Amino acid sequence: MSYSVAVAGASGYAGGEILRILADHPDFEIRTVTAGSNAGTPLIDHQPHLRSLAHLTLQETDATTLAGHDVVFLALPHGASGAISSQLGDDVLVVDCGADHRLTSEADWNAFYAGDYAGAWTYGVPELPTTDGKQRDALAGATRIAAPGCNASSVSLAIAPGVAAGLIDDRDIVAVLAVGPSGAGKSLKTTYLASELLGNAVPYGVGGTHRHIPEILQNLRAAGAPNPAISFTPMLVPMARGILATVSAPLKPGVSVDEVRAAWNDAYAGERFVQVLPAGKFPRTSDVLGANTALIGVAVDAAANRVVSIVAVDNLVKGTAGAAIQCANIALGLPEHTGLSVNGVAP
Amino acid sequence: MSYSVAVAGASGYAGGEILRILADHPDFEIRTVTAGSNAGTPLIDHQPHLRSLAHLTLQETDATTLAGHDVVFLALPHGASGAISSQLGDDVLVVDCGADHRLTSEADWNAFYAGDYAGAWTYGVPELPTTDGKQRDALAGATRIAAPGCNASSVSLAIAPGVAAGLIDDRDIVAVLAVGPSGAGKSLKTTYLASELLGNAVPYGVGGTHRHIPEILQNLRAAGAPNPAISFTPMLVPMARGILATVSAPLKPGVSVDEVRAAWNDAYAGERFVQVLPAGKFPRTSDVLGANTALIGVAVDAAANRVVSIVAVDNLVKGTAGAAIQCANIALGLPEHTGLSVNGVAP
Amino acid sequence: MSYSVAVAGASGYAGGEILRILADHPDFEIRTVTAGSNAGTPLIDHQPHLRSLAHLTLQETDATTLAGHDVVFLALPHGASGAISSQLGDDVLVVDCGADHRLTSEADWNAFYAGDYAGAWTYGVPELPTTDGKQRDALAGATRIAAPGCNASSVSLAIAPGVAAGLIDDRDIVAVLAVGPSGAGKSLKTTYLASELLGNAVPYGVGGTHRHIPEILQNLRAAGAPNPAISFTPMLVPMARGILATVSAPLKPGVSVDEVRAAWNDAYAGERFVQVLPAGKFPRTSDVLGANTALIGVAVDAAANRVVSIVAVDNLVKGTAGAAIQCANIALGLPEHTGLSVNGVAP
Amino acid sequence: MSYSVAVAGASGYAGGEILRILADHPDFEIRTVTAGSNAGTPLIDHQPHLRSLAHLTLQETDATTLAGHDVVFLALPHGASGAISSQLGDDVLVVDCGADHRLTSEADWNAFYAGDYAGAWTYGVPELPTTDGKQRDALAGATRIAAPGCNASSVSLAIAPGVAAGLIDDRDIVAVLAVGPSGAGKSLKTTYLASELLGNAVPYGVGGTHRHIPEILQNLRAAGAPNPAISFTPMLVPMARGILATVSAPLKPGVSVDEVRAAWNDAYAGERFVQVLPAGKFPRTSDVLGANTALIGVAVDAAANRVVSIVAVDNLVKGTAGAAIQCANIALGLPEHTGLSVNGVAP
Repeated sequence: MSYSVAVAGASGYAGGEILRILADHPDFEIRTVTAGSNAGTPLIDHQPHLRSLAHLTLQETDATTLAGHDVVFLALPHGASGAISSQLGDDVLVVDCGADHRLTSEADWNAFYAGDYAGAWTYGVPELPTTDGKQRDALAGATRIAAPGCNASSVSLAIAPGVAAGLIDDRDIVAVLAVGPSGAGKSLKTTYLASELLGNAVPYGVGGTHRHIPEILQNLRAAGAPNPAISFTPMLVPMARGILATVSAPLKPGVSVDEVRAAWNDAYAGERFVQVLPAGKFPRTSDVLGANTALIGVAVDAAANRVVSIVAVDNLVKGTAGAAIQCANIALGLPEHTGLSVNGVAP
Repeated sequence: MSYSVAVAGASGYAGGEILRILADHPDFEIRTVTAGSNAGTPLIDHQPHLRSLAHLTLQETDATTLAGHDVVFLALPHGASGAISSQLGDDVLVVDCGADHRLTSEADWNAFYAGDYAGAWTYGVPELPTTDGKQRDALAGATRIAAPGCNASSVSLAIAPGVAAGLIDDRDIVAVLAVGPSGAGKSLKTTYLASELLGNAVPYGVGGTHRHIPEILQNLRAAGAPNPAISFTPMLVPMARGILATVSAPLKPGVSVDEVRAAWNDAYAGERFVQVLPAGKFPRTSDVLGANTALIGVAVDAAANRVVSIVAVDNLVKGTAGAAIQCANIALGLPEHTGLSVNGVAP
Repeated sequence: MSYSVAVAGASGYAGGEILRILADHPDFEIRTVTAGSNAGTPLIDHQPHLRSLAHLTLQETDATTLAGHDVVFLALPHGASGAISSQLGDDVLVVDCGADHRLTSEADWNAFYAGDYAGAWTYGVPELPTTDGKQRDALAGATRIAAPGCNASSVSLAIAPGVAAGLIDDRDIVAVLAVGPSGAGKSLKTTYLASELLGNAVPYGVGGTHRHIPEILQNLRAAGAPNPAISFTPMLVPMARGILATVSAPLKPGVSVDEVRAAWNDAYAGERFVQVLPAGKFPRTSDVLGANTALIGVAVDAAANRVVSIVAVDNLVKGTAGAAIQCANIALGLPEHTGLSVNGVAP
Repeated sequence: MSYSVAVAGASGYAGGEILRILADHPDFEIRTVTAGSNAGTPLIDHQPHLRSLAHLTLQETDATTLAGHDVVFLALPHGASGAISSQLGDDVLVVDCGADHRLTSEADWNAFYAGDYAGAWTYGVPELPTTDGKQRDALAGATRIAAPGCNASSVSLAIAPGVAAGLIDDRDIVAVLAVGPSGAGKSLKTTYLASELLGNAVPYGVGGTHRHIPEILQNLRAAGAPNPAISFTPMLVPMARGILATVSAPLKPGVSVDEVRAAWNDAYAGERFVQVLPAGKFPRTSDVLGANTALIGVAVDAAANRVVSIVAVDNLVKGTAGAAIQCANIALGLPEHTGLSVNGVAP
């Protein structure tokens, strides 16, 4: 069976990546692409790499245009998805790639975002452990899905095994991330200019101010941490895509290296898209470019009494578009990996 | 007065950077440049950017060639400096840019390095606080100087104010560094190929194995930490030069933001080459490219109960060559900043 | 039907890219991967992005190992393919990605290469016009194929329409190429270090010395140029993959812009993998990253009396591995585009 | 003597680079910095690498503010310099870094620029040969100077020796340039985003449309070409700074390699800032990063009958700010090289 699909926000990076993956997805048919100010122009003008979709023209992003599809992917600025999705039938699967519907706590929303809280949708990094299974368990049959964010997915995947197995002190997690600028979309700010970022490393959102912190903590609570805390520091580095997150936490007294390795391996045993590397190996972002794969390397630093877990993801794939499509596959009962590549494009 | 200078290891990156700075230094006269396998070839073949030194030819790196100069800078592979310097008179100022003579603990050396311990020389990141002053105090008049390493300088400068002021738990420091590949010199390994590093972030030395850890801990002990511990994780990113180190530590109970800011500001008050940015500002590596400057931004994350200190340095200048020349200036009684620029080259 | 495949030189960039494409090719089954000094080690150690092939171990590159497959792809150093292929049966399709068998003129070989001339195999950039059709015509049923080189493919595709239509002076072609370093493989030379190439543009092979010139001229002669000449200058730029070739030639008297556009459009009408952009549009290498697509933009500069044709290719796909697989598809009678993507991965 | 200086447009890249150089210039005292929308904010907010100028605040760019200085450097958007400079006394040296006053032909201006022609000021790439000397000859004592543009300087320097010596066919010059995005300033357009340019090569201004063509042709006419023509194609590549221009032209019949080398060497004999490399050597942009140096490598391609001249400059130094200061030095009778470095910052 083939599902008809509309992608809103198709002229941006997230929308473009959804389309790149959908173009080779055997069960989805791209029927409609929409945009804001770019409506009325050919898709290929904004996504010149999507040669197989050169016949598509961007339409207006509104409920009328988006109605009548089996699946609608929203890659819109924050705050735009609620009004649109409320006008789409409950039989339509709506997958939102923004942050509007990820947080279950209105207090968290108010602490980090402007604008009214729009309520939580079904959320899921499928492979993330919960106290009674995996996050994917909630996704089957859902019709409103808040796809996870790239920073939260990467950090949560890196450290959740230690939380779930009760091996770490979840009150003192530290995460430092090297991230590519595509996560900011096509935002026209000086800080995102090539002249500014080439040859540069640029921290931002320092000191507990970054909006993705509550999503991480929500994931860690779901994995069993009663009251987690994290120091979270991202920095832009000169790679178009990718997140390399170094996440560490104190080990509880007496935890052995073997216990750590077993916890990480067990957490993701059998997972195609989250792989724990052998001892002594650590991932690079180039290993997962274009892939829906999260690679994790984990080490124990005995002198510092910390477990160090490093994860690499492509922020636009496993971090955004691939995650959204993986969630849609699950919701619709398709094989979860349909249309999603485990292999990266390197060098 | 003009001091005659020889630079050993002049065909490498560290040697080249020493020469670039010395070329405009009013009190040093570059008289001799030496190399290993490149001896006999023109310097300009290896350092095509040093146009004003195009007349120099690389000579053999041996004590005979290096003797007879007032100052000798050694930018050699680890293990090579001891034999050479022992043949140079005590009246010659020898500044070693390698790690051979930095560690005062033979046990530390044996834990992280191969080869025999060569003994410690006078060491100093001039601006680093100690329990009774600054590290620069030891440098005046020294004739054998172990110039500090780039990773240790950056991490130590970032967090030492919290140690010196007794504000942090020095048993749980976490440092994650984005570093440029020039720190590895011209080493011909696959991991340093442009094809491998372009568009990539690559962790290495994960889990407490990196050789620069004992040098950091030695600095922190000098600043007053009785038994410091650090989780230290570097990653290569695609910038030729630069280190951006994100260093955090738990705050002791009751420490205020004002106390933190005061500690950092006081630690470096009056320092030309180590500057603490105003609240809310954080440094980028491009701000210090080519400069002998370390820029520090510090924040308090109340929710995570951590102070986060971010430092940017040029690994080849403040991290290596500039530090070596700054130490030499101090040792010889010259104004400390002679020949060293505080301004970066950007964008 | 599924063809069994061996890939020799599987630990290098070209070999890795062949495997990346083959991993999703419906008609090829990767059975054997071989290497030189890396034989005996897991493939995944050298190609950590090829997660779906993590079960493969590199074997020795020799005729015994390679025998017994339907198709053998050779991604070997120059000079190595002849001895091996001579021991493989005529029923085996051998596709060589090296330069050993591309040139039909022994004199050309001797002028640009060392070592004995190994004779020409069937060669083909499928879409390139010839005086009586396309280069693909020779490939059907071939069992020894010399896959085209990346520089020759890109330059030839850019300018051949003007040659075939008789619109240009083929004695004064000028090509300047920005190329990524992956074309040089994992060669351990200083010039390919990240420290050297980051933030840099580096010319090489200047002044008519580059080995790929005779392959270009051979293509242009096949397209109808009696005695072509080209000034060819490549430069390395800091992108892991990609070639952007700017190729220009004088227009013959009286040639109109419309004639130029018609010649280029007609030459590639109906081609999936070679696309001429609308007037005023020009390609970027990121548009074709990971794709088997060559994008061409063409303009007429009336004041300079030159046609300027700019082509973008991914040197590892349309330039090497994709081209080899496209040739194999043709030789075996499969749909030419099987397993090959027209869409790039961007940004 | 010390000249008081104002820099207008001080928050941009060109203005910042002027300030970086002036900060160490012994004869200039930076007294005033101005900006447009950034007026009223600290300079250091926009130029965080200029630590020694952290005390300066940006003032309004108007004649009142700029009056009363000995020297005024204008780094303004096109079209803004005329009105301002007309209100400054003739005793003030005004150096304009924009294109407003470079072209001596109103017809050229109208063909490539919008807005009214503002008239030509004294122009000069000091080292460029003219039919009766060098362009520097016009600069002594000038009070209104149009500093040369980066593209025109680099291309003109590369090929002018062949023009001046009468060795080339100046009707068929071809130039292809790899350029860094800083030449476009802090312009907020999608094409200049880091996400767009990282890993990419992007042509622009293709087909004889680029505004810098008439400035090049004006230089070549000054060097003796009666009616030159050039095919000029720039492309953005992922380096913040730098231009690598590959410029070629047909050799007149019978011209020998020795004549070519002699012409290039003679043209720049004794020049500090324009250096011709030995035969077989070619420059890289990293060799001149931060330097006021143009490096040239020249080769003869006998088969293509073309001389190929490759030049590397830092677009912000020798291409803009260094050129402007070099011109000011000449105009004021200072030693031409005062405050300008011949050495680059590499790697």
